[in-house]
Amino acid sequence: MHYFMEPTGVAIFGASQDFTTINGKILKYLLKHQFGGQIYPINPKYKEIVGLPCYPSIGDITEQVDLALIAVAAARVPGILRDCGGKGVKRAVIFSSGFAEMGQEGKKVQEEILQIAKEYNMRVIGPNCLGILNVSTGLIASFSGSMEVDHIKTGPVALVSQSGAVGFMLFNLLQEAGVGVNYVVTTGNEADVTAGEGLTYVVESPDTKVVLTYLEGLRDGESFRKTAEKAAEAGKPIIALKVGNSASGQKAAATHTAALTGSGGAYKSYFEKMGIIQARDSEDIIDLAQAFLPGKLPHGPRVGIVTMSGGVGILLADRSEEIGLQVPELSASLQKEVQKVIPSFGCAQNPVDVTAQSLNQGEEFKKCLRILLASDELDMLIVAITMATGQIAEKIGRDIAEAALGTDKPLVVSWSVGQVAKPGFEVLKKAGVPLYHSPARAVKAIGALYHYANFQKNWKLPAIDKIDPLRKSQIQTVLRKSSQALSEHATKELLELYGLPVTKEYVAVTAEEAVGIAEKFGYPVVMKIDSPDILHKTEAGGVAVNISSPQEVRAKFQEIIERGKAYNPQAKINGILIQEQVTPGVEVIIGLQRDPVLGTQIMFGLGGIFVEVLKDFILKPVPLSREDAENMLNEIKGAALLNGVRGRGAVDKEALTEILLGVSQLAVEAEDTLLSLDMNPVTVLPKGLGAKVLDGVLISSDSCQTCTN
Amino acid sequence: MHYFMEPTGVAIFGASQDFTTINGKILKYLLKHQFGGQIYPINPKYKEIVGLPCYPSIGDITEQVDLALIAVAAARVPGILRDCGGKGVKRAVIFSSGFAEMGQEGKKVQEEILQIAKEYNMRVIGPNCLGILNVSTGLIASFSGSMEVDHIKTGPVALVSQSGAVGFMLFNLLQEAGVGVNYVVTTGNEADVTAGEGLTYVVESPDTKVVLTYLEGLRDGESFRKTAEKAAEAGKPIIALKVGNSASGQKAAATHTAALTGSGGAYKSYFEKMGIIQARDSEDIIDLAQAFLPGKLPHGPRVGIVTMSGGVGILLADRSEEIGLQVPELSASLQKEVQKVIPSFGCAQNPVDVTAQSLNQGEEFKKCLRILLASDELDMLIVAITMATGQIAEKIGRDIAEAALGTDKPLVVSWSVGQVAKPGFEVLKKAGVPLYHSPARAVKAIGALYHYANFQKNWKLPAIDKIDPLRKSQIQTVLRKSSQALSEHATKELLELYGLPVTKEYVAVTAEEAVGIAEKFGYPVVMKIDSPDILHKTEAGGVAVNISSPQEVRAKFQEIIERGKAYNPQAKINGILIQEQVTPGVEVIIGLQRDPVLGTQIMFGLGGIFVEVLKDFILKPVPLSREDAENMLNEIKGAALLNGVRGRGAVDKEALTEILLGVSQLAVEAEDTLLSLDMNPVTVLPKGLGAKVLDGVLISSDSCQTCTN
Repeated sequence: MHYFMEPTGVAIFGASQDFTTINGKILKYLLKHQFGGQIYPINPKYKEIVGLPCYPSIGDITEQVDLALIAVAAARVPGILRDCGGKGVKRAVIFSSGFAEMGQEGKKVQEEILQIAKEYNMRVIGPNCLGILNVSTGLIASFSGSMEVDHIKTGPVALVSQSGAVGFMLFNLLQEAGVGVNYVVTTGNEADVTAGEGLTYVVESPDTKVVLTYLEGLRDGESFRKTAEKAAEAGKPIIALKVGNSASGQKAAATHTAALTGSGGAYKSYFEKMGIIQARDSEDIIDLAQAFLPGKLPHGPRVGIVTMSGGVGILLADRSEEIGLQVPELSASLQKEVQKVIPSFGCAQNPVDVTAQSLNQGEEFKKCLRILLASDELDMLIVAITMATGQIAEKIGRDIAEAALGTDKPLVVSWSVGQVAKPGFEVLKKAGVPLYHSPARAVKAIGALYHYANFQKNWKLPAIDKIDPLRKSQIQTVLRKSSQALSEHATKELLELYGLPVTKEYVAVTAEEAVGIAEKFGYPVVMKIDSPDILHKTEAGGVAVNISSPQEVRAKFQEIIERGKAYNPQAKINGILIQEQVTPGVEVIIGLQRDPVLGTQIMFGLGGIFVEVLKDFILKPVPLSREDAENMLNEIKGAALLNGVRGRGAVDKEALTEILLGVSQLAVEAEDTLLSLDMNPVTVLPKGLGAKVLDGVLISSDSCQTCTN
Repeated sequence: MHYFMEPTGVAIFGASQDFTTINGKILKYLLKHQFGGQIYPINPKYKEIVGLPCYPSIGDITEQVDLALIAVAAARVPGILRDCGGKGVKRAVIFSSGFAEMGQEGKKVQEEILQIAKEYNMRVIGPNCLGILNVSTGLIASFSGSMEVDHIKTGPVALVSQSGAVGFMLFNLLQEAGVGVNYVVTTGNEADVTAGEGLTYVVESPDTKVVLTYLEGLRDGESFRKTAEKAAEAGKPIIALKVGNSASGQKAAATHTAALTGSGGAYKSYFEKMGIIQARDSEDIIDLAQAFLPGKLPHGPRVGIVTMSGGVGILLADRSEEIGLQVPELSASLQKEVQKVIPSFGCAQNPVDVTAQSLNQGEEFKKCLRILLASDELDMLIVAITMATGQIAEKIGRDIAEAALGTDKPLVVSWSVGQVAKPGFEVLKKAGVPLYHSPARAVKAIGALYHYANFQKNWKLPAIDKIDPLRKSQIQTVLRKSSQALSEHATKELLELYGLPVTKEYVAVTAEEAVGIAEKFGYPVVMKIDSPDILHKTEAGGVAVNISSPQEVRAKFQEIIERGKAYNPQAKINGILIQEQVTPGVEVIIGLQRDPVLGTQIMFGLGGIFVEVLKDFILKPVPLSREDAENMLNEIKGAALLNGVRGRGAVDKEALTEILLGVSQLAVEAEDTLLSLDMNPVTVLPKGLGAKVLDGVLISSDSCQTCTN
């Protein structure tokens, strides 16, 4: 990304002296915002443009050109790119539309572009993007109307967007909110450079403190994961607006930048793991950027609320508690201190009602803020202002700004009034105090700081996985060989490699063999058809439980074989699985699902209707730490069932934790040979008595075309 | 409320010619906004103020005074109020603080105020409020800074707030958003006039179309319910910002306007029943007001999205589907029509991407909007604009406004850009087109229109309950006589009056009697202790099931009596309840809970862990219509369990519906003699086989002090 973001020479194809055209605007904005490097307009029509020599072709430039800016008709792009390659240009940003987003024909031209780039060892951003900015160097490689402003505010917020329009919309909103930006990268169709690469560059840049990103679907999960780790390590929050989760949204995502939209669930789970803050709206992402900008995080969940209206105080308290913040009543001694600087009809409990009167004059309001910020009873402060106009608004703004600058605790302002309070808004904006025009938005923003602080406290780089090379090759070999789902027994053989407690079982080929095994296991036993071609054994009449005598074993053996053949005459039947019958316990479901971009997710939920009907399950990305595994057990809604309810004792959660860790290790070693695993049910017994995997099916990634699931 | 809102003569106590004081401001704003009636300043210091004769006391005014405005120190208020009474003043607004919100002493003065008002047949708004407005008549009885503007925009939105500061904060935000207001009523401590009365007035006013209200807790449930019914009948949406649901919020509500904050659940259920739209934030309530103002409701859930950025289109689609809207792909013929008026690289599917290009010039954009609005494939339209500045923004605004005015379908605009697009914003504001500065807010607003349209479609005035006078007197007598929870058997006797299918049972006083009953019922039977003093029978060892022989009956009879005595030596034991043992089925819980303000709520949930652990239950206010009862069964998350999952058939939902209706009728006839009812479990059998109430306890309202629950 270096040559994209810090080029010394930039060429503009089709540069025009008509500054209302797209190519004219690109030139205009580079000049207007005083790009530090060389600018080479290319256009055979002109000898020079506004004093700059203009070149008939890229070949006519004698100096080194790092970056070419190309905003011409799609059909002309391949030729121009070849010229660039010939000249030794290292990078190109292609603004033009009409490529993969337009169907098959456009896709072919886009592939050609990638070929040319590879041929000449060039890297390309776009096509169908709105360009890139490196604000402090004046590299304004964009024709967005947002560049019309006289001065672009620079600052430590970086922005990477797969959509050009959304990227520059957010840029504009940031600037309006007084938030300075260092980099903007919009990647459009991502013929070559991906949003992941853009993110890597901005995260690694020492002058980035907060990263915003708009994503439709990632192409390079691996590099994204590494970048997310770097950001977590460096304490640089990434705030993501990820779209494309709805049915029609996914459709639109596919037509728009032709992105591979990963499943919403995998993103959510991955973002949570990496502390990536999820915004739901353009307004949201700007609000969050403002909150993180001062770089102050709370050390706990206790929020102080200062208000001039009791009603707004209640509203703030309601919203705060909903997202896990606490609004503690202040201690008697602190209340006494506060009472001294607020009117007698105010309220010092928290929410602290300073009343409209105390804001207007004197030092009391500022003193009150200082007292609360200095107290060890509070971790952060929300200051809520309602009506205030003109000079009074300005004074209030100054009081708050002064308090905010003098503290390490986060302070945000909720100021719900229109432009009459503008002088106050301006003071806060200038001082970089996060300012929101409604109570709920202020709470949401400061709540995000608290949740990120928690993430940072608990975050550590995942330990390098200990791989058992023999086992790894064993599981990969089995899965590679399998063009379909593995049978229950074959699945369990692999699960056993990872120490998972599968049922004692054996495949009998004859009825007499079956009786022998059952006698050895002890009655009752379970009998199940063993066939890789019959996935839904119960449906096929292939399962019998509570088998308690040799006679029953013999009878069921024939019956199950016959039913299996009737169900699927083509099925290869290996025999009948004779299985110990496990004491009833609490049933859970544990599974794996590989997302092509974000890697494998592990799923845990309660069995029966909980996962299927109530959708009560949790996903986490592999690999799991022991803590992750323990958290999974506690994060489902029905967690109380594992801890014991209604007279039942707790189940063996340690045994479940071990199973989750074993499954995680299996996913790590299977790598991309695995598509999914479903262990349903796993029976967990009371504390100390363990758990058993009763049934399971592994599906290899090669089989995803053939299996019907 | 008439004399408050339409007074002919208004007196201002302590009126001042210093327009920076509170009493000066009240006078200033009445003059500035040209109040149509007479103004009588009262202040012995002046002979006249700005040309108006000033009176030493209220008694010196010879004309009739309808309304007194009182903003003096709390201690002086009772005296002034007496003077007003003596003069025959009909109404007073008391702005002053220092009453019930300040503790016991203030509470006493507030009670005195109410006494004086009653004595003189006066009505009082406040104390501790910020006044009232009737904009079109210039009755600006408030000193809020929001009144400084030169012109207050009048319009069909009315605002009733229990908090003065919040009320005028919302008023200010409405005016900034270009929304005209007719009435504002802030009720403060509600010594006399309540928010409910304010709501009744504004809902009944023919010039109100949309009602906004900020509520901490209602005092007069009955009048609120009647007003909500009137609003539903008239199709006037009420948008409520109800606060005080959090622990600290409730604390703050108690100290703030000393309101009785009802339970959050009862409000939610009641609001849903009455179609009252619930806002979560000040921004929210303004957004919703704008959406409802044009008075257009969608006829279905299908939303069209017009965007100049694919990315914003996806975001809008995501948020739309989350709240139950549909984003249908347009038909081939409609796409063809749309394609004619958008550039070739646009997208006509829906979201329709018209691209930035088509907005800038010509008629295409307007045509596109017209085509979509005219189509019967869409019920409403969201138009999303991103970057657009100056004249182009203005043109876009005009195009959209024209389209919006020419359609009966709701149209809202999401325009996510800063003040560079102000000319466009102004055009939309003037035309009354709902304008939001972020996609999610636009979706939320149009979604509320859809949900309200659904409510309106299904709403009907509840049929007048058929009361059985004999039964009514019977249940009320039993409940009034009971100072504690009724025993299971006594409860079931009352349930039977309402046709509820309780278990066959009989209280035996001796073991032999018990055997006789058991023989008559047929084995197995259930035996339970019958004592009004033992609520938790299982805990007391007072329940035995599966009793299968006379010997067992005799043995258990003694055992249960002894255990009961051991558990509570003081307990009065009526005997042992012999009960038919019901075939196992699906267990559900049905209950009633009376909220002192909002009336009785009926609760339905699945038994076992579903209600207790997963909090999966539903509340609806009594009385239930048959449709309400049927909906309750479908609205729990685990509804699939009633419809049959995993091989089980559906349960007898008709039987459950009848039980819900019977319980509703019981609540209606019991009126306020009932505090709560808990029927847990009710066993429901497969379709056609009915349901049985296995256990139940009724608690009378008199017993709420004595019972331990």
